[in-house]
Amino acid sequence: MNTHTKPPQQNAESISRFGAPTGVTTGPIIGSRKIYVPTPQDPSIRVPFREVALTTDSEPAVRIYDPSGPFTETDVTIDLNAGLPQIRRDWLAARSFDTVPGRAVTAADNGNISPQQTVPACPAERPVLTARDGQMATQYEFARAGIVTPEMIYVAHRENLGRAAMLEGARERHADGESFGASVPEFVTPEFVRSEIARGRAIIPANINHPELEPMAIGRNFLVKINANIGNSAVTSGAAEEVEKLVWAIRWGADTVMDLSTGRNIHNIRSWIMRNSPVPIGTVPIYQALEKVGGDPVKLDWEVFKDTLIEQAEQGVDYFTIHAGVRLPYVPLTASRVTGIVSRGGSIMARWCLAHHKESFLYERFEEICDIMRRYDVSFSLGDGLRPGSIADANDRAQFAELETLGELTNVAWKKGCQVMIEGPGHVPMHKIKENMDKQLRECGEAPFYTLGPLTTDIAPGYDHITSGIGAAMIGWYGCAMLCYVTPKEHLGLPNRDDVKTGVITYRIAAHAADLAKGHPAAKIRDDAVSRARFDFRWEDQFNLALDPDTARAYHDETLPKDAHKVAHFCSMCGPKFCSMKITQDLRAEVLAMGDNECATLEAMASEGMAAKSKEFLDKGASIYLPAAP
Amino acid sequence: MNTHTKPPQQNAESISRFGAPTGVTTGPIIGSRKIYVPTPQDPSIRVPFREVALTTDSEPAVRIYDPSGPFTETDVTIDLNAGLPQIRRDWLAARSFDTVPGRAVTAADNGNISPQQTVPACPAERPVLTARDGQMATQYEFARAGIVTPEMIYVAHRENLGRAAMLEGARERHADGESFGASVPEFVTPEFVRSEIARGRAIIPANINHPELEPMAIGRNFLVKINANIGNSAVTSGAAEEVEKLVWAIRWGADTVMDLSTGRNIHNIRSWIMRNSPVPIGTVPIYQALEKVGGDPVKLDWEVFKDTLIEQAEQGVDYFTIHAGVRLPYVPLTASRVTGIVSRGGSIMARWCLAHHKESFLYERFEEICDIMRRYDVSFSLGDGLRPGSIADANDRAQFAELETLGELTNVAWKKGCQVMIEGPGHVPMHKIKENMDKQLRECGEAPFYTLGPLTTDIAPGYDHITSGIGAAMIGWYGCAMLCYVTPKEHLGLPNRDDVKTGVITYRIAAHAADLAKGHPAAKIRDDAVSRARFDFRWEDQFNLALDPDTARAYHDETLPKDAHKVAHFCSMCGPKFCSMKITQDLRAEVLAMGDNECATLEAMASEGMAAKSKEFLDKGASIYLPAAP
Repeated sequence: MNTHTKPPQQNAESISRFGAPTGVTTGPIIGSRKIYVPTPQDPSIRVPFREVALTTDSEPAVRIYDPSGPFTETDVTIDLNAGLPQIRRDWLAARSFDTVPGRAVTAADNGNISPQQTVPACPAERPVLTARDGQMATQYEFARAGIVTPEMIYVAHRENLGRAAMLEGARERHADGESFGASVPEFVTPEFVRSEIARGRAIIPANINHPELEPMAIGRNFLVKINANIGNSAVTSGAAEEVEKLVWAIRWGADTVMDLSTGRNIHNIRSWIMRNSPVPIGTVPIYQALEKVGGDPVKLDWEVFKDTLIEQAEQGVDYFTIHAGVRLPYVPLTASRVTGIVSRGGSIMARWCLAHHKESFLYERFEEICDIMRRYDVSFSLGDGLRPGSIADANDRAQFAELETLGELTNVAWKKGCQVMIEGPGHVPMHKIKENMDKQLRECGEAPFYTLGPLTTDIAPGYDHITSGIGAAMIGWYGCAMLCYVTPKEHLGLPNRDDVKTGVITYRIAAHAADLAKGHPAAKIRDDAVSRARFDFRWEDQFNLALDPDTARAYHDETLPKDAHKVAHFCSMCGPKFCSMKITQDLRAEVLAMGDNECATLEAMASEGMAAKSKEFLDKGASIYLPAAP
Repeated sequence: MNTHTKPPQQNAESISRFGAPTGVTTGPIIGSRKIYVPTPQDPSIRVPFREVALTTDSEPAVRIYDPSGPFTETDVTIDLNAGLPQIRRDWLAARSFDTVPGRAVTAADNGNISPQQTVPACPAERPVLTARDGQMATQYEFARAGIVTPEMIYVAHRENLGRAAMLEGARERHADGESFGASVPEFVTPEFVRSEIARGRAIIPANINHPELEPMAIGRNFLVKINANIGNSAVTSGAAEEVEKLVWAIRWGADTVMDLSTGRNIHNIRSWIMRNSPVPIGTVPIYQALEKVGGDPVKLDWEVFKDTLIEQAEQGVDYFTIHAGVRLPYVPLTASRVTGIVSRGGSIMARWCLAHHKESFLYERFEEICDIMRRYDVSFSLGDGLRPGSIADANDRAQFAELETLGELTNVAWKKGCQVMIEGPGHVPMHKIKENMDKQLRECGEAPFYTLGPLTTDIAPGYDHITSGIGAAMIGWYGCAMLCYVTPKEHLGLPNRDDVKTGVITYRIAAHAADLAKGHPAAKIRDDAVSRARFDFRWEDQFNLALDPDTARAYHDETLPKDAHKVAHFCSMCGPKFCSMKITQDLRAEVLAMGDNECATLEAMASEGMAAKSKEFLDKGASIYLPAAP
């Protein structure tokens, strides 16, 4: 087990012109290896997992859901110029979509900057696909037609992770949870995936122009997913940094990534991201549209927005945040709020509506937006432009009015054949979280909910990954399908590499705690493996099974760096004499050596002891609890 | 506002012999100042707060509960040799306790080490007080006799923080919470404190030999409190480090501190801690008793334990963890667990019981223990020696059998006149947390619950402040009175200075989120102040009101270090063009400029719009949700 001394590799296969990516982090997470497992339905469909081998012969290796893509293969060579392998190409080819020349890139797409400052586009070439009118294109349309797609087969096997190993105790363990009405099956089949998508209760964000995608599902009856945001802003950061942030975020477990760039080179940076992303990429098209009109929300119009939708759909973006629920009449509802409108998209649209005194063109043109997005199978992420930005504004009329409109729009999008999820807040104290989830399920017909946190208090800038991790775990338990991460820099600045990792790990904790509490049949496998390793003093196994093996190992080594201590039957917290686990292991041996009769006697003594004690008190005239004081 | 450039002072007033403390962190938290407010009932009783002045004239300064003691006064000089001011001396003198010579310190008290290695005891001299038989000594006894003590007056004013300012909206805001049966009053009076203590529903841990204590309350109808653990172990750390950890932990908000030392010099290190602690100090006496018998649990007996209780009670320890619920018949119940017994005290007692095949002497001698603790008003913290150490073991029979016994012992302790709280788990998935709280309230007659976390998953060593912060926030909401922090080093090593701070801040978040959700009348004041500062771009106010101003400021400055940006109306996340708060402020001005009629028209439009849209769908023959797929 010397692999942990090997630092992540930095490959430098890419062009090194100004701003272009020159290398990303590759190689497996320490103690893991990437495996690809063929699905029983179609052996050509091979699903990735991360496998952690243990140092004991008495337990099998543990398989872990793995969104990190080819970057974490052993000795992999990544060529960012060529883009990732196109695992969906044949599946898409079988659907006979039209290949079109595609929209010409304009200078405005990159913010009208000088050629010297322009980041080159990723040279990887892909045909631009589009569906004809009447031709089925979306996973929703296939699902409703009763067709199981390769993406659904892939997702079923991916979600099914570990369940077979638990066949024996599955029913019992599944029952050990409170799912608040979710219907998590004991085994996920492709047909189950299809039925969930047809019902609108799950989506597979998968643009037909994103052949590199490793499909994944978002829905309350699947594993809870997390999203990480990346993106440059006008103030800082460039292309190389953004591609590495993507790779870094999925390395630690981000299931989808949103590119929230607002600065220069948006189009070209996105080309690098799309061609090298194995996870769904989401964007907020209004950001780029705003750049195209010089940053003045009042100058936005349908044409520039529509142009941006097509531009990004052709590049392969998998889901769009569309703030179509920010309607003119809701704007005054925000005036008396403590923190007004905190969504960028929401404030842009509110500004537009009020300046023109007109209903939002996103709302008015919603059916047209559906028609465009359907042609590429871009999923909707209906934006919560009026989400609360403070505890004071949680669950107010503005927020819920918008949510009701999102429910109305969900129905329209389904009618148009589109996949839909719904974005949610924000800042919400614990006692108001469940109301959000219940109302979303009711208003939006169980379309997947995708929330930012929520943050459960406003008083901890610098620690908002934690304030929000609390709310995220809870809403995930209640039924939220995807949790958008919050980093320690929220409210303060742009996250760096460490912040991205901290945010991702925190949200993996929240998502997993939610899966456990829902009674997800496979969730507990990993907890039990960690706990057994801990109890057996298998330190290397404990580290390798951890969400972040590097940090676990480093923390241990801070106090007890010697290699000998990794096999020691104690740790620095208690030292050898006070180690409860050591004492318990001795105890267990003694108990196991006891006869059945002896055990039975002790257990009887337990009941008798308590009964005797109770009697003793009652004999003394005491009641169980003392009377209240005068 | 240049105070933030001034680093914390290091005073060096103390002796500098081997291992003795030579200085601790002093001075106010940046942007705050310490104030002392006389109570209306007795102006000689002065209660400390931390006050944050704002940069706007339109809002008052914000008062914050402050457990940090004199160390955070401006330009304070701390003499660790002399100990802190004895604010309780006159109150205690009025009670006419006996002054006794006190037990002689033996070499075994410090682990029988050589004089060269012995840390000197703190030279501050205090008389050793003890109550006579029949003389009232505990806050519980006074409360039941209808007597309001100065400690109760102090606590009432301390807890009442900020409520007067909210007089207007108090009822309404209080109603905005779900307290699960708690009875948090709108205003805390000394009589309310007395009645809660008399009912056993709250405690004021306050040994009569701890005159330096600033009294505080632990109970479900008071602010949720947090505890930080410090303590050396056989493997590492010494006296100077432990005293600084105490000062550091309370600086960031620890309400009580447990000294869990197990190594050498235990007695003398504790003398430094006691004489310089303004917060209640808790210990686990069995740890020191075990040291006295050479580390072999089997050699423990009542005499050495009793001797240790008296030794520590005379030093002024405010609460003792007593694992009297680990009974012989429960030991076999742990044999089939994934992680057996993870409490050090629990495993020691289980080992003793099984080796001797006898009932625990802590259980058998419980009434004698009560008699000793009553004489000094040492509060019970009834230990959960059988708490689950993994998700797999949560809420099992061993855990709940012990909890039932703790309920029985609570009743005994009350009968004996003692104050009691109950320790709780541990590792518990979210869906099993409420059962713990409900059972504890029921079995233990609402005696305060004091839990470690609970950790909501086992898979994140290195991040267990977060896995447990989630559970802590939830159980605090459900009614837990005090949350024992968990640091990032849990399961891996001993926490250093940074870990202690991270643990404390995380648990302040959890406790505050719980207070908010319970609808505590004063909790929201600080959230609203932060949010208004954020919306107004008052960066300095946002930093200074934060739980950790240093980190908030440092994170901001990483991306936008220039001073000009601290007054800028945007931040690095979105840049000037995309700042939703800036856009909203403009919007608000426009909305406020609109006439009432215009607003009314828009609101009507909101309702009509939705009605029309619904009608449109129904006219097209669509139902609200599409029929399920075939």
